[in-house]
Amino acid sequence: MKAGPAIREERLHDRLARFARIGATARGGVNRQALTEGDREARALLAELGRTRGFAPRQDAAANLFLRREGRDPSLPPLMLGSHLDTQPTGGRFDGALGVLAALEVLEALEDAGVETPRAVELACWTNEEGSRFAPGAMGSQAFAAGALAPEWLEARSPDGARLADELDGTLRALPGVPIARLGTPLAAYLELHIEQGPVLERENIPVGVVTGIQGTVWLEVVIEGRAAHAGTTPLAFRRDPMVAAGAILHTLHEGIMPGDDDARFTVGRIDAYPGSVNAIPERVTFSVDLRHPDAETLGELERRVRAVCRREAERAGCALTLRPLVHMPPVAFPAAMVELVEAGARRAGLASRRLVSGAFHDALYLASRAPAAMIFCPCRDGVSHNEAEDVEPRFVAAGATALLEAATGFLRSSAPAAA
Amino acid sequence: MKAGPAIREERLHDRLARFARIGATARGGVNRQALTEGDREARALLAELGRTRGFAPRQDAAANLFLRREGRDPSLPPLMLGSHLDTQPTGGRFDGALGVLAALEVLEALEDAGVETPRAVELACWTNEEGSRFAPGAMGSQAFAAGALAPEWLEARSPDGARLADELDGTLRALPGVPIARLGTPLAAYLELHIEQGPVLERENIPVGVVTGIQGTVWLEVVIEGRAAHAGTTPLAFRRDPMVAAGAILHTLHEGIMPGDDDARFTVGRIDAYPGSVNAIPERVTFSVDLRHPDAETLGELERRVRAVCRREAERAGCALTLRPLVHMPPVAFPAAMVELVEAGARRAGLASRRLVSGAFHDALYLASRAPAAMIFCPCRDGVSHNEAEDVEPRFVAAGATALLEAATGFLRSSAPAAA
Repeated sequence: MKAGPAIREERLHDRLARFARIGATARGGVNRQALTEGDREARALLAELGRTRGFAPRQDAAANLFLRREGRDPSLPPLMLGSHLDTQPTGGRFDGALGVLAALEVLEALEDAGVETPRAVELACWTNEEGSRFAPGAMGSQAFAAGALAPEWLEARSPDGARLADELDGTLRALPGVPIARLGTPLAAYLELHIEQGPVLERENIPVGVVTGIQGTVWLEVVIEGRAAHAGTTPLAFRRDPMVAAGAILHTLHEGIMPGDDDARFTVGRIDAYPGSVNAIPERVTFSVDLRHPDAETLGELERRVRAVCRREAERAGCALTLRPLVHMPPVAFPAAMVELVEAGARRAGLASRRLVSGAFHDALYLASRAPAAMIFCPCRDGVSHNEAEDVEPRFVAAGATALLEAATGFLRSSAPAAA
Repeated sequence: MKAGPAIREERLHDRLARFARIGATARGGVNRQALTEGDREARALLAELGRTRGFAPRQDAAANLFLRREGRDPSLPPLMLGSHLDTQPTGGRFDGALGVLAALEVLEALEDAGVETPRAVELACWTNEEGSRFAPGAMGSQAFAAGALAPEWLEARSPDGARLADELDGTLRALPGVPIARLGTPLAAYLELHIEQGPVLERENIPVGVVTGIQGTVWLEVVIEGRAAHAGTTPLAFRRDPMVAAGAILHTLHEGIMPGDDDARFTVGRIDAYPGSVNAIPERVTFSVDLRHPDAETLGELERRVRAVCRREAERAGCALTLRPLVHMPPVAFPAAMVELVEAGARRAGLASRRLVSGAFHDALYLASRAPAAMIFCPCRDGVSHNEAEDVEPRFVAAGATALLEAATGFLRSSAPAAA
């Protein structure tokens, strides 16, 4: 046996640069939205890079693309490593691509070192994680986890008028030699490296984020209805002003939720007043609430608090209240053994790590319902993502890929069948 | 001399109904926006009604329309009574039309009674008071007060693509026999009857509102800029959330301004968050402030308070603040003698009255810079205006016209030159 497998930083950086040229924008970002020509070109390059090293490519009906490095026992479900290659319209070079190309680097490192693994290791490139052309996001991983594409997705149209079913078909045909397998093949475990998309790791100069789970999310639409009236002629006693209620609700919840709980997230990103005249008390104010917490019970309590404050302030202002739930997604906690596996891997590689909860959705959220899953976060500059300015320092790229390699080899060792 | 002049309620009600048919909407309101075919039809009818009684019609370059009942000395400046015939797109039957048709009723009452007045009495129908097709509102009365139309107004386009200069021209040509006089003829005084557009008179069952002045108004646009970031991944310490500042500002000012001062008005009618994603901390929140007070000094103090609260809360949230003044209109107080004239007239007619300040702009605001002016308010149902449901009880219509007649005859007596 040769020396142990190791990440080759230069190769990984060259690959990241090569993929960043596909859909490159003038401002240094990437526009490579799901199922476009750019996405197809990136997938073709990935399939080609895999074939060169003998990793068999495979697709499924959701146009998820896999590369398989075979293991000793082909009948065992593989360890899967993955992420996505699609981007936001003004996306960056690392969101998604880092996880896919680090996974490829892990496969190549195993190949370079001539390691025979007890089970296969597969790279997964999930379709349409971003959801910017077709809703919902994480479509490929959701379909894989469910074993099927939701029929209503197939008829969805992108803003440019394309039909999802046609775009999937075109994308599959763009890789003519790559077989199409059934959706949702069995797997032993799933690991994903991704940029943090937040500022915590960079601020603490910690290269490896050990993701313990994904926050639960509640989205609400709050509609407060009062009575439109003339701003100049209507005394206080005659007003039923929904903006008064909205101001009190925002202030109370901004003061009350996040300052009291480091793990809570409360954001109002959208607000609108109807009819929107400078000199009219609005008839209606509508705003969104995005509420997150890693603990399901606390999230439930916070939601009850949001609802109670909305009710109280709408009533105080003489207004009617409607609360529409838009999203209810319970938190996911990755299995302790998987979290410890990632932590132990970082330790072996001499990399500092810390645990943290993911505030964003990822493909791993859906894979977690099919197999033990875990995620590794990589620090990104200023916590910026979904932005052409997104950036990751080379030392953190290398550290993230190394942590992924260590977690993978750690899993392969621990899950190996006892020798016959 | 015949019996004293008196309002003929039935005639006035018929006239209101007749004009309400021009531009009538299915829901009982009126859509007769400035300078449209409907507006031209209403003006032609008004000119015709005047001619029938011998009241000479006259126009000016702003398409203001006048009817003159000559007095003993044609060289004396006339007493002018007026309002407007244009409406909002979904306007009511009384806003504007009541003042114009009550003025016509006063002229006819004088004519019916064969009263020779010492000076002429003129009806004025001001162009484009509402400003819904072309900004600014009160365009005709502003042009009359200034003696000219602002050149930039002439090139303005309506949402339907019409150019103001063309629409004025077409409107003037639609009354071919009516001479065009210069803008801004001298006048002795100006009186206007208008619906209150607020709830005070109706709640107190008082038929005559004696308007002591028009509130000062400040409009500000408040722009708070923070940093867009992911709602799920960004902890409190890393947030620069303009919505946090907006909530605190709204709450502080809603609690602090109107509850402490019965004469103050504070309204936020428009608010917007950019980019407006449910799951993104907004980069920017923009809202409007409409601030009013009848006392100039207090209005100044309130504006300073609004600015200070905005600065404090933007800074506290780590955001940048821009305050753009949109309107700065100082309060107008009508001369005490004119206010007392209206009050005395109501008393003579046995009508209960109370003083109040106008919260809305009116043509009288601009006429007040040219001559002693006063206004009479008429109760309107539930204080509703700019609405197809706008309504006035017949008894209040009659009382308002009677108060206008009494104020007019009172002024004519008090301003009569000493007998030679």
